[in-house]
Amino acid sequence: MTGVDPRLSINQATIKAADLATALRVTAEAGVTGIGLWREPVNEVGLDTAARMLADSGLRFTTHCRGGFFTLPDGPERIAALNDNRRAIEETAVLAAAGAEGSTAVLVLVAGGLPEGSRDLAGARERVRDAIGVLAPEARAAGVTLAIEPLHPMFGSDRCVVSTLGQALDLAADFDADVVGAAVDTFHIWWDPQVLDQIARAGREGRIATYQVCDWRTPLPADVLLSRHYPGDGIIDFATLTRAVVDTGYDRDIEVEIFNADIWATEPAEVVRRTAEAFARVVSPHLP
Amino acid sequence: MTGVDPRLSINQATIKAADLATALRVTAEAGVTGIGLWREPVNEVGLDTAARMLADSGLRFTTHCRGGFFTLPDGPERIAALNDNRRAIEETAVLAAAGAEGSTAVLVLVAGGLPEGSRDLAGARERVRDAIGVLAPEARAAGVTLAIEPLHPMFGSDRCVVSTLGQALDLAADFDADVVGAAVDTFHIWWDPQVLDQIARAGREGRIATYQVCDWRTPLPADVLLSRHYPGDGIIDFATLTRAVVDTGYDRDIEVEIFNADIWATEPAEVVRRTAEAFARVVSPHLP
Repeated sequence: MTGVDPRLSINQATIKAADLATALRVTAEAGVTGIGLWREPVNEVGLDTAARMLADSGLRFTTHCRGGFFTLPDGPERIAALNDNRRAIEETAVLAAAGAEGSTAVLVLVAGGLPEGSRDLAGARERVRDAIGVLAPEARAAGVTLAIEPLHPMFGSDRCVVSTLGQALDLAADFDADVVGAAVDTFHIWWDPQVLDQIARAGREGRIATYQVCDWRTPLPADVLLSRHYPGDGIIDFATLTRAVVDTGYDRDIEVEIFNADIWATEPAEVVRRTAEAFARVVSPHLP
Repeated sequence: MTGVDPRLSINQATIKAADLATALRVTAEAGVTGIGLWREPVNEVGLDTAARMLADSGLRFTTHCRGGFFTLPDGPERIAALNDNRRAIEETAVLAAAGAEGSTAVLVLVAGGLPEGSRDLAGARERVRDAIGVLAPEARAAGVTLAIEPLHPMFGSDRCVVSTLGQALDLAADFDADVVGAAVDTFHIWWDPQVLDQIARAGREGRIATYQVCDWRTPLPADVLLSRHYPGDGIIDFATLTRAVVDTGYDRDIEVEIFNADIWATEPAEVVRRTAEAFARVVSPHLP
């Protein structure tokens, strides 16, 4: 277990094929001390059982993935989406309470894309703001921080109309920082000419709810959603980005979240081992 | 020929399979009055011949594509790239002089990606600035405007380290506006939360060197370079973007530049006809 960085957290999406029991086991067995969970595998076993399993694992809980999908116009589908986010807030609070000391109650929000047939990007973005306004009091009551995640602009039409860290911070600005923050994920923001300024701003405003790392490499695969790589296997400058995050005073967990068909086809224990190695090589040298 | 917008210009890349003679002929026969050319088909016949052919066509010349690829470190390859840009400047001046009245001497610059093995995005961006500094006096002497084209951030590592209009304008700010401007291409900038402010700024600063339109649609094809569509076939809001450009006072040509394998496999005359129809339906209603 020597050499596993105590700040590393495995986001469960990195070992997507593993069920909750396997994910918790291989993470803990690798000497990793934190995990970010996804709603589907948690709900597969049920929230109470998941919370017990998490407590038994001894792992810190670092984020819950994910809420959002806020861009639908008024109507039953939007109401259903908001109710689903309410459940996600509850899950986040329960899991954070069940996790080991240092767990954080952070729900990652992916805003959603343009509704089918729509070209109204500004309107979709306003509906994201409105939805966060509806959910913020409930998050506050539950002690949960909503982390708005800007996604790379290649997902801007069909997945997430929040495309830059600056935009996420502008959305968050209407709310208290312990209730609405931003997810800082290297994969999504490395290209942004304003990235260092916006990381500094996010820190100043107390809004870095989670720092997530994985790498970017081209050519992109046919499904661009699966174009993430182990840190160090691509072109992202983790030294500069990590130092920018560290310089804000962010001292909590750092998640590795990789969507990649080859990695998903690899034995989960092997993926966790390789992730911990990559993290130690590429990220840890830039931590205090 | 009724109904072809007089401001439409066909960028030759849209009919990539056509040689220069065919491109000029099908464009003029469709009643389109402007064309943007690419260096390869021009150099295939030689510059002087190309200029004569362009003059004979009666078409306006609207842009030359393209220069750039400025991100290499010092050395023989960088010197070769700069020399190639000098030739592109010369070609642009000659073709603009040969085109019909209203032709514009605009050379589109695609900055280039990270050099092989590099993660130094900031350094690559500085080399772009340096290269433009070298070329600007030569562009001025030739009466050519260099148009820095921001490319969508999905090309940020391997093709163009200039990713937003704001960044292009920051780069251009060191130079006179008639020497260095920006290319405003809907495909590359539609997602940007700052796009309307930056279009207004580009107009205020006199830097809209060309306005180009094509559409964005998902899923992206396996080669994301070829993910452009006829205006109206995707999710871009041409009303809002075109009005923003018009509101700056921009009153020159509007190019359609589409990279798309299906469109490239279609008869060029048919592509020009469909392009003119799409333009008339989606862009023209928002022009004065």
